[in-house]
Amino acid sequence: MAIITLTTDFGLKDHYVSAIKGAILTWFPSAVIIDISHQIEKYNLLDASFILKESYPNFPKGTIHLIGINTEFSTSGGYVMVKQNDHFFIGADNGIFSLLFEEMPQKIREITLAENEKLSFPARDIFAKTACDLAKGGDFNSIGKPKESLLQRIPFRATSMGDNIRGSFVYIDSYDNVTSNIDKRLFEQVGKGRAFIIELARHTIERISKEYSEVPEGEVLAIFNSSDYLEIAMRNGKAGSLLNLKINDSITIRFQ
Amino acid sequence: MAIITLTTDFGLKDHYVSAIKGAILTWFPSAVIIDISHQIEKYNLLDASFILKESYPNFPKGTIHLIGINTEFSTSGGYVMVKQNDHFFIGADNGIFSLLFEEMPQKIREITLAENEKLSFPARDIFAKTACDLAKGGDFNSIGKPKESLLQRIPFRATSMGDNIRGSFVYIDSYDNVTSNIDKRLFEQVGKGRAFIIELARHTIERISKEYSEVPEGEVLAIFNSSDYLEIAMRNGKAGSLLNLKINDSITIRFQ
Amino acid sequence: MAIITLTTDFGLKDHYVSAIKGAILTWFPSAVIIDISHQIEKYNLLDASFILKESYPNFPKGTIHLIGINTEFSTSGGYVMVKQNDHFFIGADNGIFSLLFEEMPQKIREITLAENEKLSFPARDIFAKTACDLAKGGDFNSIGKPKESLLQRIPFRATSMGDNIRGSFVYIDSYDNVTSNIDKRLFEQVGKGRAFIIELARHTIERISKEYSEVPEGEVLAIFNSSDYLEIAMRNGKAGSLLNLKINDSITIRFQ
Repeated sequence: MAIITLTTDFGLKDHYVSAIKGAILTWFPSAVIIDISHQIEKYNLLDASFILKESYPNFPKGTIHLIGINTEFSTSGGYVMVKQNDHFFIGADNGIFSLLFEEMPQKIREITLAENEKLSFPARDIFAKTACDLAKGGDFNSIGKPKESLLQRIPFRATSMGDNIRGSFVYIDSYDNVTSNIDKRLFEQVGKGRAFIIELARHTIERISKEYSEVPEGEVLAIFNSSDYLEIAMRNGKAGSLLNLKINDSITIRFQ
Repeated sequence: MAIITLTTDFGLKDHYVSAIKGAILTWFPSAVIIDISHQIEKYNLLDASFILKESYPNFPKGTIHLIGINTEFSTSGGYVMVKQNDHFFIGADNGIFSLLFEEMPQKIREITLAENEKLSFPARDIFAKTACDLAKGGDFNSIGKPKESLLQRIPFRATSMGDNIRGSFVYIDSYDNVTSNIDKRLFEQVGKGRAFIIELARHTIERISKEYSEVPEGEVLAIFNSSDYLEIAMRNGKAGSLLNLKINDSITIRFQ
Repeated sequence: MAIITLTTDFGLKDHYVSAIKGAILTWFPSAVIIDISHQIEKYNLLDASFILKESYPNFPKGTIHLIGINTEFSTSGGYVMVKQNDHFFIGADNGIFSLLFEEMPQKIREITLAENEKLSFPARDIFAKTACDLAKGGDFNSIGKPKESLLQRIPFRATSMGDNIRGSFVYIDSYDNVTSNIDKRLFEQVGKGRAFIIELARHTIERISKEYSEVPEGEVLAIFNSSDYLEIAMRNGKAGSLLNLKINDSITIRFQ
């Protein structure tokens, strides 16, 4: 069995997603195809990287993840296949990989294009094709040619300075919960169990909840999400709208 | 083969749904995973119960239905697995089962949690895990421990009084057709073939159509839907908006 | 393996799509079910035909395509199964097939209905059932009875007149790219390599790009899409809104 996942900004109405699935089933009939998301905000690599980063570790090792966003050949560093954390990723070298992984991947293959390769639908004609080559048992190191490095886009990472952690918001989910780039490891390392104040533009929070239901309905809370990133949420309410939190807004934790 | 269906209010953009699918494929690679709906109105158990009730009987007996809505542990009566009508259902004991079934299930297992079980994503970590335990051939009666009863939320049911049936609207679909809780059995039992008037707030209907196309375009009609519930519809039009029908609004049938 | 695809205007929230999938898995457990789109504009056959036409050729030969739009029995020429280009199509004879194929299919079977067949959900009870009969190895020519012809709806086709081609817009995708019914073959046949002007209501374009990124961001371009139809697009922008292009608006190419 080979699992191929799809992460794109193609939306669900148009024919693009099903065209890719049809092509995969033509080339590799026993593929198990799973949608990660097709509702990535158009052209938004940060959005794509967050969703894929949260989702992919749930899949079995060896899963092939196809990334269909900003796939224009001439504005990227070419098309690549990457092996990282025992998963495979296929997409354009447009900076997505530097947002997706904490450490830059070392196992990189550049997908070689046929002469006069048609470039109007690379997610199907090139990425899905390569995914099937790999799924059929192809050797990672025999596909395409080696590539030294990938395009870097510098993600905002949470940083500590003395007794403070400064981070920013990276994702707002459909419940209007707002996730930051501050993870539990950094929080514990800097905080060492001390009391703290979480400062948002218009609000402060002085504790971290273990469950949404620890607070009354409509109250704001801070919680480490299932991936251990600090999230600002509201029980049965909309934290992002109410507190006017936006992507890239800053969040500060001051330890006492 | 084991089929696992998913009914949630997670939406399709975020990583939550695919995280569950990845986890299922990790624990039980041959699972067939089918989406029932991820666009349940947030926190709305009535909405979830209607959609699942209409959908699940179409699946083969033995199908496992995972219900991912209002899954907070401390606000529910715990996490449960229920066997009813030869189907399995896994979710939080938050009242959904009393809305889902006409008769309360007798076969109930409480899912036992590990000490310090992480409760940030129970639909994945607990429900999907239990679904896979069952799908792998686990015995229903050996999973978790027996549970006597489930939380009751009283659904509004249609009732008859003399020559009248009084019901209410329970669902508005994407065509803006509006489904009531009056079923054909009750209609025939009370009506015994007599003439009748269906009374809505702003409209009356004196017959029940067999097909949408029995009336001219833009005309309101009453029809028993594919599950034999009475539905108010408009051919190629939007009955709910035009007649200003809302969930829980009343509908009365007067027999002569 | 048998692949069954679904193209409907049912949307993704309601139970309709999953009810069909459950029924298919009940009748034919090993079916591979793929969504083409469920977000077809309600009742819009042109929309359905465009999406299915772009998608279906990507699937393996022998794939069965179920079409769930405008399925009322009495307003159609009955329910049919069509074999064309080595694919199977099942739906209502409502004109969709004349929009879907350049040449009208010759291999047509009328699906015979049981007496008192319930017609409230034909996409499930009749189309999915027939798809499974076929998937199980049923012979196309033994299902239902032969049918001579299909309902015609005349699609607007691009036409040439002297040195000009006149077409119209048939689809606007989620990127707000606008596809016309002018294909590359007609363009090359009439143009014979000459210079040209593409005339839109408010804009002219004098070249056809090979890649979206050939023009600066925010500039309008013309490009043959992955199916070789002429598309008006904007790099990282919204061509349809900016140029106020609508479905059925005309587009003219004047060769010099």
